[in-house]
Amino acid sequence: MKLLEDAIRSKGRVYPGNVLKVDSFLNHQIDVGLVDSLGKEFYDKFEDRGITKILTIEASGIAIACAAARYFEVPVVFAKKSQSLNIGNDVYTSRVSSYTHGKNYDVTVSRNYLLGTDKVLLIDDFLALGNAMKGLIEICDQAKASIAGIGICIEKGFQPGGDDLRKMGYDVVSLAIIDSMNEDGTIVFR
Amino acid sequence: MKLLEDAIRSKGRVYPGNVLKVDSFLNHQIDVGLVDSLGKEFYDKFEDRGITKILTIEASGIAIACAAARYFEVPVVFAKKSQSLNIGNDVYTSRVSSYTHGKNYDVTVSRNYLLGTDKVLLIDDFLALGNAMKGLIEICDQAKASIAGIGICIEKGFQPGGDDLRKMGYDVVSLAIIDSMNEDGTIVFR
Repeated sequence: MKLLEDAIRSKGRVYPGNVLKVDSFLNHQIDVGLVDSLGKEFYDKFEDRGITKILTIEASGIAIACAAARYFEVPVVFAKKSQSLNIGNDVYTSRVSSYTHGKNYDVTVSRNYLLGTDKVLLIDDFLALGNAMKGLIEICDQAKASIAGIGICIEKGFQPGGDDLRKMGYDVVSLAIIDSMNEDGTIVFR
Repeated sequence: MKLLEDAIRSKGRVYPGNVLKVDSFLNHQIDVGLVDSLGKEFYDKFEDRGITKILTIEASGIAIACAAARYFEVPVVFAKKSQSLNIGNDVYTSRVSSYTHGKNYDVTVSRNYLLGTDKVLLIDDFLALGNAMKGLIEICDQAKASIAGIGICIEKGFQPGGDDLRKMGYDVVSLAIIDSMNEDGTIVFR
């Protein structure tokens, strides 16, 4: 998607350790107009799948998921990253190892908000190793919800998460796939 | 706001310890149509204030802030609750004590995304003791940004946060103020 690639090129910054910071428009400061366009693009890709719910993970997936959900006219559910005193014990849970934060955490979704009848679109801002997404898949499996597709804003194509998920049979749509990037600012899109 | 009060009455659940769960539509599962209406309401209340940025705190403030930001046509910035390896060291930070989670945490905002010229609308889902909001205020003070208003979805009027903030001189608009609530489901709005 050219709009997103242009934003990454002009506003993204590459740091050591294959870190791409897009916090000026996607996951700290949020350009709501741009994010709305991303949501519309996911709708265009997946509108015929009978989606009943969009599942994402806090915090940076929420804005994107909500933008898409406005077009699909379905609820968003965001998985929580740590057990809150308020969420209750009746949850689906999965353990995720975070590349960005260098630690493990649990993701949880209340059993009330993910049903065996749901057709779920999974959405997240980044896909690298795919650990967060595999956690969401495990939660959908626990709920016996079907996964109708996976929508990613930025896939790091040089890391194995995207290929892993496609080999597992999931329809992964990434709006921008980075084949390589360099600290001098060079970013090559697929 | 009648729409929100009706949703709280019909879908909210009261638990011991003055806990109101609205996770079926506001802060776990998200009713994006309802949240859009809340965003519009904040716009109607604050549209003449020259707002340049909406500041909220992850994770449950993000959807509401984005809904409002679409009307204001300004960026959202969400404060992060723990130091991420990706956020950089050049941040404003404030320590917040959480009523819900029973622990303290740091909130951080990158210096790049909050400027001395900004007129900020602070938005959050809940206001109880006001600790999170006071953390955001401290961050705005560090950035020398001016605070044009505070928009809250649900204020627990029987706890002191709202009064504290009003006494400090802030224009606090709460879309629903709860004067009392009981585990039998009775909720009295102001």
